[in-house]
Parts: sequence; C-alpha cells; structure tokens
Amino acid sequence: MRFLGEPHHDGSALYVSTQAPSPGSTVTVRVRAPLSAGITGVHVRTVHDGEPRFTAASPFVPGAVGGYGESDVWWHADIVAANPVTPYRFLLHTTGGQAWLTAGGLVTHDVTDATDFRLVCHEPPPPWLADAIVYQIFPDRFARSRLMRELPDWALPRDWDRDPVTPSGPGTSQQFYGGDLDGIVERLDHVQALGVDTVYMTPIFPARSNHRYDAADFDRIDPLLGGDEALRRLAGALHARGMRLIGDITTNHCGRTHPWFTAALSDAGAPEREMFYFDPGTGDYESWYGVRSLPKLNWSSDLVRERIPAVLKKWLGPLDGWRVDVANMTGRRGPDDHNHEIAALLRREIGPGAALIAEHCHDASPDLDRDGWHGTMNYGGFTRPVWTWLRSPELDLANFLGVPGGVPSRDGLQTHATFRAFAAHLSWRSQANSWQLLDSHDSPRIRTVTGSADRHLVALGLQATLPGTPMVFAGSEYGLTGVNGEHSRTPMPWDRPADQDLETLAAYRELLGLRRAEPALRHGGLRWLHADTDCLVFLRETAAESLLVCARRAPGRALPLPTRAAGVYNASDTDVLPGDGPSLRVWRLTR
Amino acid sequence: MRFLGEPHHDGSALYVSTQAPSPGSTVTVRVRAPLSAGITGVHVRTVHDGEPRFTAASPFVPGAVGGYGESDVWWHADIVAANPVTPYRFLLHTTGGQAWLTAGGLVTHDVTDATDFRLVCHEPPPPWLADAIVYQIFPDRFARSRLMRELPDWALPRDWDRDPVTPSGPGTSQQFYGGDLDGIVERLDHVQALGVDTVYMTPIFPARSNHRYDAADFDRIDPLLGGDEALRRLAGALHARGMRLIGDITTNHCGRTHPWFTAALSDAGAPEREMFYFDPGTGDYESWYGVRSLPKLNWSSDLVRERIPAVLKKWLGPLDGWRVDVANMTGRRGPDDHNHEIAALLRREIGPGAALIAEHCHDASPDLDRDGWHGTMNYGGFTRPVWTWLRSPELDLANFLGVPGGVPSRDGLQTHATFRAFAAHLSWRSQANSWQLLDSHDSPRIRTVTGSADRHLVALGLQATLPGTPMVFAGSEYGLTGVNGEHSRTPMPWDRPADQDLETLAAYRELLGLRRAEPALRHGGLRWLHADTDCLVFLRETAAESLLVCARRAPGRALPLPTRAAGVYNASDTDVLPGDGPSLRVWRLTR
Repeated sequence: MRFLGEPHHDGSALYVSTQAPSPGSTVTVRVRAPLSAGITGVHVRTVHDGEPRFTAASPFVPGAVGGYGESDVWWHADIVAANPVTPYRFLLHTTGGQAWLTAGGLVTHDVTDATDFRLVCHEPPPPWLADAIVYQIFPDRFARSRLMRELPDWALPRDWDRDPVTPSGPGTSQQFYGGDLDGIVERLDHVQALGVDTVYMTPIFPARSNHRYDAADFDRIDPLLGGDEALRRLAGALHARGMRLIGDITTNHCGRTHPWFTAALSDAGAPEREMFYFDPGTGDYESWYGVRSLPKLNWSSDLVRERIPAVLKKWLGPLDGWRVDVANMTGRRGPDDHNHEIAALLRREIGPGAALIAEHCHDASPDLDRDGWHGTMNYGGFTRPVWTWLRSPELDLANFLGVPGGVPSRDGLQTHATFRAFAAHLSWRSQANSWQLLDSHDSPRIRTVTGSADRHLVALGLQATLPGTPMVFAGSEYGLTGVNGEHSRTPMPWDRPADQDLETLAAYRELLGLRRAEPALRHGGLRWLHADTDCLVFLRETAAESLLVCARRAPGRALPLPTRAAGVYNASDTDVLPGDGPSLRVWRLTR
Repeated sequence: MRFLGEPHHDGSALYVSTQAPSPGSTVTVRVRAPLSAGITGVHVRTVHDGEPRFTAASPFVPGAVGGYGESDVWWHADIVAANPVTPYRFLLHTTGGQAWLTAGGLVTHDVTDATDFRLVCHEPPPPWLADAIVYQIFPDRFARSRLMRELPDWALPRDWDRDPVTPSGPGTSQQFYGGDLDGIVERLDHVQALGVDTVYMTPIFPARSNHRYDAADFDRIDPLLGGDEALRRLAGALHARGMRLIGDITTNHCGRTHPWFTAALSDAGAPEREMFYFDPGTGDYESWYGVRSLPKLNWSSDLVRERIPAVLKKWLGPLDGWRVDVANMTGRRGPDDHNHEIAALLRREIGPGAALIAEHCHDASPDLDRDGWHGTMNYGGFTRPVWTWLRSPELDLANFLGVPGGVPSRDGLQTHATFRAFAAHLSWRSQANSWQLLDSHDSPRIRTVTGSADRHLVALGLQATLPGTPMVFAGSEYGLTGVNGEHSRTPMPWDRPADQDLETLAAYRELLGLRRAEPALRHGGLRWLHADTDCLVFLRETAAESLLVCARRAPGRALPLPTRAAGVYNASDTDVLPGDGPSLRVWRLTR
C-alpha cells in the first residue's frame, strides 16, 4: 500500500465543507494524515486577490470518518472563497521537514500554483450532471424505426447488418444506414438497463453526411431522423423515464450548405459575410482543419454571437444540455481568442439547469474552472492513460488519438502518474463533471484497443469507479470493435446475436449499476493506495463508506490489507487483495 | 553527470531560430540528443488555434555546436508561430519507448500543456533588459549629497552611521536617514564598477514614510530627494554613462494623503470617489493588506485607467522603465480581475523601449507571456531555491518570505527541482527578462540567510550565471546583513570601513563583470548536468562557447568531466571538477 502513509486532501465533501461556495463565504478544508507522517503543524495557503495568505489548521484526533486510518489525524481550517476561483494548498510541517500538499501530490520543494486545489464560486453545473451515466449514440447507426426513408442525393445506402462500415477513403461520410430517433425510443429499455440516465446524441440537424457535423440548418431536426416531432417523442420518452437528453452543437463551424454560409459565399456584401473568415485578397475561407465542407465561424461577428447562442437555447426543453464539438478551437484563430467569452456567453444563454460539455482532445484545463464549459470529454486525463495501460500487446494502430507512433504501452506507475497529472490541473468539480470515456465515435473501440474481454472489463471498471461522469459509446457494451472513429460507428447488432458479447453486456449492467447504487463511486473522495506495473488500487470514500477498487491488467502478487474488506463486485470477503488478473474487484471496507 | 544523456531543448538561440517571431512566421526548433538516448524519430507538437498538430523533425549529425557532445544528434523542424503564444513540445520515439520533452523535462507519461515550450509573438521587451545587471537602491539609505534638509513632520531623524535601523515596531517607517538623488550621482563610479548598467530605485514621489510606497503625489519628485531637477541630474548622469534608470510605481494603491484619495474620502460625490473601493454601507475603504495608509485603486474606474498610465508615461525620459509594486494584486479584488488588461494598457502606454517588471512574490507565470509585464521579480523561481540550499545551519527566521516555519533547508536535488518547476511555466523570454534577486528591500539580506561569506558567494555565482537578469540590492556587495526587509534597508557604509567586506565586493565585481563579458551567461542556453545534495553543475551555451558552472555548498567528491575545461573564474584548467567547497567555479569547455 504505497501511498497509504501520505497525507491526503481532495475536493470531495469529506475534505471540503461546501461543494458550491458562494463568493466571500467561509469554507472548512481538511487534511487527513496518519500519525506516521509525523506532522507537527499544518497551514493552509490561499491566494486572495493575487496574494498568498496563511491560515493555521487545527488537529482533530481520532479521525472518525473513512475506512482506513481510524487513527488518522484530521487537520482543519476555515478559509475564505475570496475570488471566483480561490487557489489553496497545504504546508505540512513534519518531523522530517516541510512539504507542500497540492492536487499534484506531496512535494518537498516549491512548486508553482498550477496544481493548487481550487474553491470555485462560479455557478455550479446542474447537479444531475456529475451523477449521470451517459450513453453516446451516433444516430445513423443506433436503431432504425422503419424502412429507409427516401434517400438524400449524397447518401450511399448500406444494409444495417450485412454491409460492414468502411473505415476510410472516399464515401466514408456518405455511407448511410438510416438510423433515426424513433429507433432510439424503441431501444430505451436496453439503454436504461445499463444504468444509463443520460443519452448524448451526435448531431441531428440536416446535413450532407452521415455524421451531420456539417449542419445545413440549426432550426430543424433532420427529417431523415424523423424531424422535430421525432425529437419531441424521444425527449418525451426519456423524460418520462427520468432520463435526460444531450445534443451536439458545432460552435466552431457549420456546414458548407448552411444558408448563413451560402449567403456569405455568394455575396461579399451579405450581412452573413462577417460570420466567417474570408481572405480579403483571395476570397477564400477558413475551414476546420482545412476541410472545405466545414467553414469556420468567426466569433468576432455580432451575428455569430447572436445566432449560435440562440440555437443552443432554442432546443432546450427537448434537450437538457449540449456537448460542444471542437470546443477547443471555438473562437480561436491566429490573434483571436474568444473562447472563454464564448463559453461564458453560451452558459449564460442556456441557464443553470442545462449541461455544457466541451470536446477537447489534449488538455482542457485552461478552459475549465471558469464560468463556461462545465466539463470536458476527458480523453487526455482518462482515455489515454487507460489505453496505454490496457492496450493489447498486438495492437497495431498508426496513431494514438492523433499522436503519431501508435498507442504506447505504459505501466501502472505511468498510468497513475497521468491520471494525477491531468486531475491536478482541474478543480474537483470540473473533474467530476467531465466525461470519462473509453471510446467514442471519433476513436477506435476499447475492445480493439484492449484486444480482450477481460482487459476491456478492467477498463470498464476504472470508468465505473473513478471520479468523473462515465460516457459509454453505444455498442461497446456488446464488445464491438473498430480501428478508428469511422470504423467504430458500427450499426448496433440488435439482430446479430453473434456480435453480441453477452458477458460483456452483463458486466456493463453490473458495474454501471454499481456506480448508480453507490454514492461513494459518484461523489466520494479518491485516495490512491497502490500502483505497480500491473496493478492499481484506490479508495472512493464518503463519510458513510469506503469502497476499495483493485484493477489488475495481469496476475501479480497478492497485497495484504490492513483491515477486513467485504466483497462488493467480483470479490469475496478478505484481508488480502488476490493476485489473479486481468481482474477488477470492489470491496467495502469494514470499520 | 546525471543529466548529460538527456535530450535537450530550451528557448535560447541555439535551439530556436528566432527569438522574437512575428505572428504566423516559421521558426526552426531543435532538439539535441546524445546517440545513447536511442532516438529513432522526433515529432514536434504545436498547438494551433487550440488544436495539436505534429511535425516530423529531421536529424542532423554530427552536432557542430556546443561544448559537450560533438556526436550529438540535432533534430530540427520548422513550426509556425500561429498564435500570440504557440505552445510546443517534442515527442521522442526511442528504442525504449516514447517520451515527451517539455520545459518540465523528460517524461514517459502524458502531461498537460502547462509546461509546454512557448513561441511568443507579443512585442518583445526592450533588448537591453535581458542584458542588464540591475542595482536596487532604496533612496533614503543609499547616499546623502549634503546635510539633512528640513525634516517633514512625520520623520524621525536618524544618524547615517551611528543609528542602526529598527527592524520592526512603531516608527519603523518614519526613521529617516536623508539619502537623496544627488547622493546617488556621487556614487555612480561604485555602481558602475560592479558591472551594473541599470539602477532601479524604490519610490521617489513625495509621501509620508521613508519607503514612499504611500505616494502623496505622482506629479513631482519628493523635494526631500532633491525634486524633479535632481531626478533629471541623476538620469542625465546615468545616461551619459550608457546606463539606465528604472522607477517604482504603485499601481495597486496610492497614499492616504494623495489628493485623489483625500478628494474621494471627503466627498462621496467627488469624481475621484470611483477610483477607490468604498463600502456603500459603512463608507469604509479597501486598502492594501488592511494597511490604512494605502487605499487600493479600483481599476474598474475610467479615471484610474486614465491617470495611472499617464503617470508611467510622464516620467519616461528620465526613467527607462518601471518596476510595478504589488503587480500581483493590481486590479484584483473579489470578483474583479483586471490584471491582464492593466498590464497590457501600461505596456502600450510606455511603448516598446521601456521596461515593465512586475513584483510578484509567489508565482507570476499566469501573468507573464502576455502583452503586459515583461518579467517578474523572481522570488519564487530563484530567491527561494537559492536560500533553501545555501541557508546557514544556524538561521532562525520566523518566516520564509511570508511562508510560516522559517527558511527550510533543502538539498541540491530539491533546489534543482524548484528552479526547473518555476522555469517550466515561463517562456524563455519571460525567464530571461525576470529579475533574479538574492535579496531586496523587502527581505532579509542574503548574507544573513547564508550566514557566511563563502556561501554568499555561491549564491552570487548562481545569480551571475543562471538565466535571468541579476538584481543586486545595494549594500549586499559589502556583505551587509539584515533579518527582514526593514532591517535590510541599511544606510550604505561608505564611511564605515568596518562594515565593508572588500573580498565580497571584489567577488561582486568579478562575477558580475564576468556576466557582462560573456554573452553565454546572458543569452546562452541552460543545460543542467548534475545535481546532488551539495553540488549543482550546469552549462550555459551559445553557438560560440560553452561555459560550465559548478556550485558547491559543501565539500564533496570530485566529478570527472568527459572533456577538457579551461578555468575562467576561480578555477584552473582541468578535466575533473574539484570537490572542495563551498565554492563557485566557472570553466570554458574546449572543443
């Protein structure tokens, strides 16, 4: 138990008295430390109005909360949330010298404020978001309520069960399977049985591709999907089950056939001209990553600032929030950087009850903990470390979510270091509201990455038990495979029993159901206990309970526990963590 | 030579083709790596408009530049400075797996963008700033041109050589020694002989304290210092020597007796009322750290935005730039954070030829690399690590520049880690333009901290040889002592030979002179070669030369060099770094 002796703090309710402090309010923060840490005193350093201040903390013995460490000393101090984001850290005076405790961990030298803990006074995300289990649906591939409608001119029709998806090359975006919104309604029993309570759909506006990220219209739902009425039926069915629905909006661009763009392109004097980046010399326009069908929106334009927020607002009601496509590039071009303003504008526009999740493929931290995006799709801090630890030895992908050189193989220590490195740059709130995904419509499938059902289930176990909102890409619960985003957009195997891995499906139901059942898995603090090459062990803790999770990618030595543990998932009562693997097990610690 | 095998990049001209790239320009970046690193390929990752891109680098063998490693491979790639600040890092493909090289060092797991290298397209600081050696003068204590002038009512007169400074308690800010600007003129030979080319004076506006941070007027120079004409004489004398003069401005507050504040205080309807933070209920006002004599300026006020920049501009001519007092708090209060706007406004106002250095006592990195402050007073990334490494075993200070618990004792590895942790969050440019100080009018003296002349000289050696602009607090070249800021404001011992440590003075002249003579010490790249408990070794390198610096706080084992080294400072020709210490030695590596 490598980290057990470390003093600990995180942003959860065990350690911070108020999860949504109001500006200027007083908040009690706590550090727990074993007696063996030799702590003789603790100060909290806050930064108020740009200047550090120190507050002495008081000890409380014995620790009456948490599973391990009944004899832990809990140091506590009252600090003031003076600014919208108030950084804080702990200065530990020990018999062996001083140390700083920040979200980056314990260090015995000075570090910058970059990894300070944070009290965030901005209006909190809607409370259901951090509690959610999200299910991502790519509408063309999820379910079809009836025979194919009239085909649009761009589409290449494909048979749902007989034609495999073409992963690349011409026509990739045109292969059309004809899924629709009423098809989703028919499958909600399946979705809900997974423990899911929130459906996120990639775009549903009319477009000229199967992915619909090239919107031709933001004012109606694609008739190929059933139109506006089908959205209302789907939203109604979900809301009747107490579930929620999240849409997908392209704030960075629209489609080449959108009337805003056609007006702008055809007439340099059109009011819409300012909505895009036209080169005054060549008349050429800026597009997303050079893809001509996706002209980039210019957020210096008042029209963009009026029209895009209106779109987000218009569809609330049926929708409970938005995932924002290419949020990382939105409003950014050369000298322009309107990103934070835009995020704040959009959040104000949708109001406090709706969710706003930013797509971001590398490091969203500078764009979070503001009054904009509630969280990110956490590829950097979750997907990548899970992949590098659990990848198949035979995996042969040309790149790693865009990084050249394929998916590197990394051990548990490197994986743990990555989890911590990314989490350290976010408030607890932003971490909890970010989506932890194993795969998506933009990536290879986790089953392809892991190459085996058992490592896939270890990945799922991490997704179900670590902080952050799990987002499941539809089809991965059946163990579907895919070598890239396009290839992973597999039509669901409703009528292909051979493509349904029912053991994997059962594990999804059990593990996501466990997350739904256990508050500690959703809201509990996170204490890492152990990391080695093939094994990661951590605790999720509330005042009421401590759950211990042991993830192994391969067999290893058994690890003795200093207390008794009661089996919760895939585990029996024990005082030793068994060494067999790959495995994912959960215990409850007895007090 | 612990780090010698590490691939290296920094922002210096050896590794980056353009030190001041224009927006959209192409820049060549280079990594050097020994063959033993087993590198098979290198990609550069830039982030453009919020999205990562990868560019393959090409190898060049043999490395024809730099001292060590004639057989190093130099990988180079052309990247585009797409944004005002363009982050970049290197992905190294090696026979042992992948690694990232960022300004934080080499890691084999993923990390956030926080420590990416940076191309900065903002207008560069004036070129003389990074070349400067700065000498800080506290005017009341530096030199007196004549007998004391008429005393102001607040002053408690003190005899220059007979009355020791009272370090704390009532009257501390009123003890008055009567230094003036013409006194400085008389001592410029002394200043220039140190190698200094830039004088920075703490405030010289009329006030009601010896430190004058409580300005009563920004429109004239304190008559007690000789008034406006004395400033012109001083500036003229400096400029005639090719030297520069930097003033000290309080952008966060003014003095309680300033007419802006007296108008605002006496009349709630006065236009100046908006310039401060008055509580509408109590009528009470916000002040710096609760010090009532320093009412805080409210930068939401148009009047503040008009009047303060005008002050900075007005005094340019005699002054070549400004040190900004409490820059870290300026414009920050509760929900308000105007800091970056203010910095940009001030920089625009003073124009490209003047310097703008921000006081910041913990971590300035979020406020640098913008279009505002050129650099910071680098307490966090320089002063503190030097102190913790070289502190006297007997040192007994109650706090560590505001941090409770005194100055911790840390070893060379922790010191090296701190240097790197802070430098990693700054562009090379911001590091080079930040002031590296061993002490100031706000701190204990370095001689008190180190407790010995020889450790003091090791500290001085680091100041003279590491990247960043050295700032010497007047008097430390004589080995003066002081237990806190007030106490360190010692009247200069011009006529107290017993207080003049002439060996220390000689070392200042020699080491600062060395920095002035050697371009590599001012502009060269920085490669750390070795760190252990008591020893730090690094190289400063240009295309023309490599200087090796070995700093020891205590004796240790000799370190063999893989090449021949020619003695430059306190050293003879050798191929072994001698183990005696405390010592600071410099060699030139032969090619």
